[in-house]
Amino acid sequence: MTALPLSGVRVVDLTRILSGPFCSMLLGDLGADVVKIEAPGGDPVRQQGHDVGGLSWYFAAFNRNKKSIELNLRDPKGIAVLERLLSDADILTENFRPGVLEGMGLTAARLREINPGLIVVSVNGYGSTGPYADRPAFDFIAQAMSGYMATNGTPETGPLRTAPPITDLVAGLYAALAAVSALRSRENGGPVQRVEASMMMSMLSMMAYLSSNALATGRDPVPTGNDHPIASPYGLFRAADGDIAVAPSTEVIVRRFLREIGLEHLLSDPRFENNEARLANRADLNAMINEALAGGTQDDWIARLNRAGVPCGRVQSMTEALADPQVAAQEMVLRIPHEGRGEIAMTGFPMKFSETPLHVHHPVPELGADGRASLLDAGLSDAEIDALIEQGILGPGTRGDGG
Amino acid sequence: MTALPLSGVRVVDLTRILSGPFCSMLLGDLGADVVKIEAPGGDPVRQQGHDVGGLSWYFAAFNRNKKSIELNLRDPKGIAVLERLLSDADILTENFRPGVLEGMGLTAARLREINPGLIVVSVNGYGSTGPYADRPAFDFIAQAMSGYMATNGTPETGPLRTAPPITDLVAGLYAALAAVSALRSRENGGPVQRVEASMMMSMLSMMAYLSSNALATGRDPVPTGNDHPIASPYGLFRAADGDIAVAPSTEVIVRRFLREIGLEHLLSDPRFENNEARLANRADLNAMINEALAGGTQDDWIARLNRAGVPCGRVQSMTEALADPQVAAQEMVLRIPHEGRGEIAMTGFPMKFSETPLHVHHPVPELGADGRASLLDAGLSDAEIDALIEQGILGPGTRGDGG
Repeated sequence: MTALPLSGVRVVDLTRILSGPFCSMLLGDLGADVVKIEAPGGDPVRQQGHDVGGLSWYFAAFNRNKKSIELNLRDPKGIAVLERLLSDADILTENFRPGVLEGMGLTAARLREINPGLIVVSVNGYGSTGPYADRPAFDFIAQAMSGYMATNGTPETGPLRTAPPITDLVAGLYAALAAVSALRSRENGGPVQRVEASMMMSMLSMMAYLSSNALATGRDPVPTGNDHPIASPYGLFRAADGDIAVAPSTEVIVRRFLREIGLEHLLSDPRFENNEARLANRADLNAMINEALAGGTQDDWIARLNRAGVPCGRVQSMTEALADPQVAAQEMVLRIPHEGRGEIAMTGFPMKFSETPLHVHHPVPELGADGRASLLDAGLSDAEIDALIEQGILGPGTRGDGG
Repeated sequence: MTALPLSGVRVVDLTRILSGPFCSMLLGDLGADVVKIEAPGGDPVRQQGHDVGGLSWYFAAFNRNKKSIELNLRDPKGIAVLERLLSDADILTENFRPGVLEGMGLTAARLREINPGLIVVSVNGYGSTGPYADRPAFDFIAQAMSGYMATNGTPETGPLRTAPPITDLVAGLYAALAAVSALRSRENGGPVQRVEASMMMSMLSMMAYLSSNALATGRDPVPTGNDHPIASPYGLFRAADGDIAVAPSTEVIVRRFLREIGLEHLLSDPRFENNEARLANRADLNAMINEALAGGTQDDWIARLNRAGVPCGRVQSMTEALADPQVAAQEMVLRIPHEGRGEIAMTGFPMKFSETPLHVHHPVPELGADGRASLLDAGLSDAEIDALIEQGILGPGTRGDGG
């Protein structure tokens, strides 16, 4: 098996739920050896989402390429086991509320003692300093506070939450980038450091022209739904059998679009001759476009317009998107055989590497299944591990087939 | 000045508009030396967004920490200059349509000849293979095709585009993570490789439980707007002076929430005793919660509920979010003095590094301003540079104060 970009990197993962597990999964996808430490009973996400044969596919989608140890960190013996694992790690990932790690005795000073090379990666709600540092975090709240929700929706709906837990995911992605960058730096003689990303600030950084224009003008953007605030034609239009999204980004492409649908003559009509005029007469223009498109199917128009260089596509439902031929060509739905759980489907790897393609090198772990192997590896004996299981420090799922 | 995580890394950047420039800016923020090659006239985003004193703050927000060379790559002499820059680079970033780079003569074989260590980073719409590889890309279309739009909105709105160009940004972030990972791998003896991320596949990978559940059940999610599909109470509620978002994630936190607002007794009412019952009677429950909250202000409730461990927060507009005290504490609005352009405001760095804090080490570049310095650095003479300006290969903005 070819080495992956992070092969040989050891991650001890204390994260749970979503933002942190996404970060540690990205590190695992990139080839790191990720040991997920789960509290007794396991990550709550094991109980969320649709259950297939006893396994949550939602959990599976965020915890592939990880090992699992079920370990009671409320007991000092559990902390001692964790410290053994940390002594040999490159990276510790955590998404507790700021201060919780320190409360477990794992202060910066203690971590330095255990392992002076350890990079600590934190994902949290609002950042570890500032007036909201101690607040409990949640995606919906970070969407609301970052200004994102106020831009999503229409004037009729008002501020609208978006369904995917986008602030968790963007923060997890930033945290992974920070982690790999800090690792690369340390490996090149740079300092050992603590890195973090928060859900609210990560989302704020994604507001693009909405934040730039607000900073420049002091005015808030108006939510415009599917109408582009400053471009026409743009949006959803109706072909014979369903909607298509069309986004002509320049005058040249507007001309190509109108030419393909037989409306090029409108560009010599004063009501439509330039973008400003078209914005003023958007409703009329859209009606004419819908009428023109009614003569063809989605597939016809999409093929034809794309050939002419007009960005457009079908509005796909989730299941349609997952069945899309391009999604198949990009191997973006994985079907992973799993011992005891049948075949598990999940979305694939959006990062493509020409020489070291990412793949599932460790299946979704059963709770605690890698405890014995990982702890033997960390230098514990089978007898010590058996005693820890006996004492309830290691969970009952700790595989008993070692020694 | 302390070295940053990517100090010493050289990036030649052919990207324009948004997805690619976000990727190369992240590399620049992390400390890489990024030379942005702009076609004559410059990146089109220089003309987009609100203009302050002749500068687009939208452009500024995606092009800090880069140098600029205005170079005509339609002329073989321009390509020759580019090849000089590439011969000494670690990373080439590009977001052309697949095949365009090769069309410029920069095939994989030629790039290997010029620089056998060069990592090529591509951001594109749909991936460089598969039936849609050649289609023009645009955020709105990637939102539609990835299944994302169909989950955003409410049953009344139907599929709804979100305002921030989220597919550009997520793809740019993935591409940066892939780039740093490939670099780290190469520096550790791994292969030199080409990496890429596409807008549609990056967005598809962010659908979380929406895609997991669709794969598990074959059914599409229903857009639910601000109501959580499977949790109640949850959503926006009305305090005396405005809305607050409340997201109690467990039964324990639901109890804390209802206790704080004086409604704990509802939990012994069969209509509200568990989540299932509350979902069935959501409208009644929400009305009672709104009535209870009407007695206090947003600030009162938010302070009180957060203290009780209930995730909640204000729904902030863009300008409110930018003025938030936590945003200030996290230094998430930067005000950068700029020679000739006054002070430029932009959002800051969501990645926090304890030992090497990110900062603006190169201001937003004027078009072509770094051409002379960068090319002298690459070994060209002042006379050669003057000749290239004379021939129109280098733009008129190329700083004339060398030699």
